[in-house]
Amino acid sequence: MEEEGIVKRPSEGGESNGTGAADGISAVIPGWFSEMSPMWPGEAHSLKSATYGKVLVLDGVIQVTERDECAYQEMITHLPLCSIQNPKKVLVIGGGDGGVLREVSRYSSIEQIDICEIDKMVVDVSKQFFPIWLSVLRDPRVNLHIGDGVAFLKVVPVGTYDAVIVDSSDPIGTLREAILLSQSPRLFAQVGQVFKGSVKYAWTTVPTYPSGVIGFMLCSTDGPPVDFQNPVHRIDERDELNKTKGPLKFYNPEIHYASFCLPSFAKRVISSKTN
Amino acid sequence: MEEEGIVKRPSEGGESNGTGAADGISAVIPGWFSEMSPMWPGEAHSLKSATYGKVLVLDGVIQVTERDECAYQEMITHLPLCSIQNPKKVLVIGGGDGGVLREVSRYSSIEQIDICEIDKMVVDVSKQFFPIWLSVLRDPRVNLHIGDGVAFLKVVPVGTYDAVIVDSSDPIGTLREAILLSQSPRLFAQVGQVFKGSVKYAWTTVPTYPSGVIGFMLCSTDGPPVDFQNPVHRIDERDELNKTKGPLKFYNPEIHYASFCLPSFAKRVISSKTN
Repeated sequence: MEEEGIVKRPSEGGESNGTGAADGISAVIPGWFSEMSPMWPGEAHSLKSATYGKVLVLDGVIQVTERDECAYQEMITHLPLCSIQNPKKVLVIGGGDGGVLREVSRYSSIEQIDICEIDKMVVDVSKQFFPIWLSVLRDPRVNLHIGDGVAFLKVVPVGTYDAVIVDSSDPIGTLREAILLSQSPRLFAQVGQVFKGSVKYAWTTVPTYPSGVIGFMLCSTDGPPVDFQNPVHRIDERDELNKTKGPLKFYNPEIHYASFCLPSFAKRVISSKTN
Repeated sequence: MEEEGIVKRPSEGGESNGTGAADGISAVIPGWFSEMSPMWPGEAHSLKSATYGKVLVLDGVIQVTERDECAYQEMITHLPLCSIQNPKKVLVIGGGDGGVLREVSRYSSIEQIDICEIDKMVVDVSKQFFPIWLSVLRDPRVNLHIGDGVAFLKVVPVGTYDAVIVDSSDPIGTLREAILLSQSPRLFAQVGQVFKGSVKYAWTTVPTYPSGVIGFMLCSTDGPPVDFQNPVHRIDERDELNKTKGPLKFYNPEIHYASFCLPSFAKRVISSKTN
């Protein structure tokens, strides 16, 4: 399972990741991992584990590395949770590595943290290789469900959660509750038709992802509009619970605001899809 | 000189770029270019020219690609030039590919644009492969000097330029005039000792650079402080000269402001170097 610090889930269907090799290991540079994806043709990113620490790879795609996970985990969590007044119940779809749970657990206001991860192996592997992140499972507020996120939401009463964070590779189109946070800009127009509240796109840098950036879609349901760009509260530095988790490495209120400022080409794309 | 759309300058000293090959072509993926640098150990970025267009490589290091050059060229130019009231004389050190010149030439207020490029081959190769960028050499305001930037500055009277843009891989430590813009955060403390005015660090995303980001150091000399984060003017969309250059792809006033918002780990590094 582990080779040169790279933690892989075996590809169940035997799919290729586009390199012609069943996984990225050794296919390009011996002893390194290389990600090549049909979604991002014409580029490859190669890592040596000594530099990036342990790397979690699912079906040939880098999910997290110990070196730069902070940017992704902190932004995907605190962008939505600092945008609402008093989150009490939060659902995480995916996120079996525990990084998002770790960030959600910083809020002493939160009373219930449910996670629905489809792949038990991700949780088991992460317990072994990233034990600190998953120590959050001992937090009595956290409830782990193994199963399909869409099926899970179908049996949950509308309005159960104050925030739903989708930490998966692909967006789940049927989510209709609370604040949705997902990563794909491709569905901007469709999402706007589903969510009747505010819809906003943010981005941040994650060196190990293709192009070095990742986007976030923030959406709210009916009700008063949510000003996602201007957070309603800070993560209180004096909060005793938050302090036990160690300082944030990436997120702060300025970077929250800045993540909604888009380059001109991206503004034009979004504008063309919403008009 | 050209192979699969990759434009290379031969490495004069025969140095390795760290891959064990004299250049990055074919060393990792046949038909692709890979950059591996001793400055960024443990990672490699590989490009196929069909995706990134023509790529200019100097001594194994990617300088610009047709696909993402806009982010770098627009930010390194407009961050300083939108921060000062009425730039009339601008010097570019390096920048022989013409991309920065193209951006500087958008300002009708600018009367004189000098460029000092040490490597004539960069200009010649760029004329051949990026002819549109270097068509700016026909602008009567532009004066091309081939030579060493430090030597050039030694014979120029103090105060000649309103802005100096250093578009080179390594910062030039002896610059003391006007606004300096360079890329390296490593010299933050030293730069602060040389420049007695304002010193500020910004960053932006450039997918083909290591880690997908690049930093900019903005510095002013004695005189009233410069508020680099809040630009004093926009690039006037109604300016007839600017309009002939086509729309900006990346830069806008919001991204200007956002580029000075740093993640927490970077704020701590800069704070430790300046206190």
